[in-house]
Amino acid sequence: MSLFEETLKCIEGKDEEAVKKAWERLDSLTKPIGSLGKLEEIAAKMAGITGKIHNKIHKKNIVIMCSDNGVVEEGVSNCPKDLTVTVTKNFARGITGVCVLSDFAKSDITVVDVGVDYDFKEPGIINKKVAYGTKNMAKGPAMTREECIKAIEAGIESVDNLVKEGYDLFGTGEMGVGNTATSSAILSAITGLPVDLTVGKGSGITDEQLKSKKKAVQAAIDINKPDPKDIIDVLSKVGGFDIAGMCGCFLGAAKNRVPIVIDGFISSAAALCAFKLNKKVGDYLFPSHLSAEPAISYVMRELGLKPMLNLDMRLGEGSGCPLEFSVIEAALYTMDNMATFEEADVKNSDKFIDIREK
Amino acid sequence: MSLFEETLKCIEGKDEEAVKKAWERLDSLTKPIGSLGKLEEIAAKMAGITGKIHNKIHKKNIVIMCSDNGVVEEGVSNCPKDLTVTVTKNFARGITGVCVLSDFAKSDITVVDVGVDYDFKEPGIINKKVAYGTKNMAKGPAMTREECIKAIEAGIESVDNLVKEGYDLFGTGEMGVGNTATSSAILSAITGLPVDLTVGKGSGITDEQLKSKKKAVQAAIDINKPDPKDIIDVLSKVGGFDIAGMCGCFLGAAKNRVPIVIDGFISSAAALCAFKLNKKVGDYLFPSHLSAEPAISYVMRELGLKPMLNLDMRLGEGSGCPLEFSVIEAALYTMDNMATFEEADVKNSDKFIDIREK
Repeated sequence: MSLFEETLKCIEGKDEEAVKKAWERLDSLTKPIGSLGKLEEIAAKMAGITGKIHNKIHKKNIVIMCSDNGVVEEGVSNCPKDLTVTVTKNFARGITGVCVLSDFAKSDITVVDVGVDYDFKEPGIINKKVAYGTKNMAKGPAMTREECIKAIEAGIESVDNLVKEGYDLFGTGEMGVGNTATSSAILSAITGLPVDLTVGKGSGITDEQLKSKKKAVQAAIDINKPDPKDIIDVLSKVGGFDIAGMCGCFLGAAKNRVPIVIDGFISSAAALCAFKLNKKVGDYLFPSHLSAEPAISYVMRELGLKPMLNLDMRLGEGSGCPLEFSVIEAALYTMDNMATFEEADVKNSDKFIDIREK
Repeated sequence: MSLFEETLKCIEGKDEEAVKKAWERLDSLTKPIGSLGKLEEIAAKMAGITGKIHNKIHKKNIVIMCSDNGVVEEGVSNCPKDLTVTVTKNFARGITGVCVLSDFAKSDITVVDVGVDYDFKEPGIINKKVAYGTKNMAKGPAMTREECIKAIEAGIESVDNLVKEGYDLFGTGEMGVGNTATSSAILSAITGLPVDLTVGKGSGITDEQLKSKKKAVQAAIDINKPDPKDIIDVLSKVGGFDIAGMCGCFLGAAKNRVPIVIDGFISSAAALCAFKLNKKVGDYLFPSHLSAEPAISYVMRELGLKPMLNLDMRLGEGSGCPLEFSVIEAALYTMDNMATFEEADVKNSDKFIDIREK
């Protein structure tokens, strides 16, 4: 059995009993029931992941999957293709946005070359290259099924190894010129949403270029006819190595029972693939921010998640994850350090809980 | 000249030159222009406040204004009135939600009794009591103009003193049963919005009680006829000591040129009063979360601000501020630690900036 198949089989859902106990404690804290909103949901979800009511994060890591996309030759992006190489190098140099924000959040990053069209000699870039970029999805399948599974396994292995090193909170990031086009194609393929809704302008392209991008995404779907019931078919025909790699990270996190944070649109498309492969993955997913790419809302709806941060960010790279790490850690800290009515010895706690106005 | 009048006169707006220089640096960092969204806006706004491009927060404080509201006798809340006393004591004991979240964010809190119907003997509660609660606004003015100005000055003094102690980032919080009713009355009085839009259910009240709450808020406006052009008239007739005190905090922060964070609906109503007293106050305000009380959206629209956190929180107390502190500090850290294209020696930086897709 392949690592991919084994991982899918091993994934178990949340610990229902721990979630129940977590809610019992949350409802007994000295505050109106539910008044800490999403912070309470985070604390309870984390209990379902670890099986413990009290949780503390020890080591954080954002896994950044880097690869090239053949579809760039259709003019879906006006970035030069070699930007993938430049930014991947800059991750290793620690100077990009996600590096600085990770540093702020005391998180590490892991840079994985899962399919960049370049041979890196720099230290700090893990070589899990499946190929030197995908083929042009507008003309045929972006990759083979075997390549797709290899890319997914690169993600699973990355998380497996990091869990062994003690990391217990993960983020996901990516770099790959053209990867909003592949994300849109995946979303349209899985949900049937028209490309008019799933393809966004990104930050750079003009109205004219947007037309080319939509045309390329539509062509990719028309030519390849990805089967929405077969996620590997979708990912291999209209996806990218970066997205498949991130999909593997989500699967790996679920298998290892560790929480993992979604970044923006591309990361959420990868999360959607993992979720469709095994619904139990949803128990391990935390959204972060509502990025500026409009289609992220559709993905979040499919995942049943609501991003907590509204920062109009559109950098990618995994840059939303460190900010969400802070929110998650605040939630866990609250669970641990707020007093229950019993501990606080507050009289009439029933009254206090039920009828406090605010 | 009173402290209040002097403060209003002393407030100066942002340092336009510093804001311009901040944007120049932000636009030269190795990322697509504007791609860090609100983080960039925060960094630039902070430059306007301090006059410096690089800023670091040294000491944070959330000032919590506590007071009682006479309008509770109209059944606007189903909390027992003495909850104001209990929770104020719990602030001093450090066991409420805002205490724990502040602790997480390495922030201090300052608890001010600006009008609670109780004599506290506990240490850690600063006595700036104007009166033992306001009068019932549904039957006449909640307080006199003199009392209102005294409560505002309690806020100004609090911030003045804390700035002397080196605090350079502020939050605002409150405790006062009935203070969503007064906040709604203020919002309706200032904007002319009908009470149907400004009065929310809070977390506890039933449909029947909501009717009583709306009736009381409408009665307060009908009987007192607060003049929307005279904020002191509005605040004294249909406000509360807590809201007036927080209004003073916002004024004090602007006078001292220090940033100050708005919490939820009640805090935002106070910010609106300060902003209407002097528009330049807006240069010092940072929103935090979109609380569960629906009318906060109207206040934010008036203030021209968009909350960054979407956590469905409805605890009050100032509990949204510590989470926003983290976002602000992340923004400042990014400004300080991301490389510019020049520093990073990236070739073709124009291309990189202008056309990077994501």
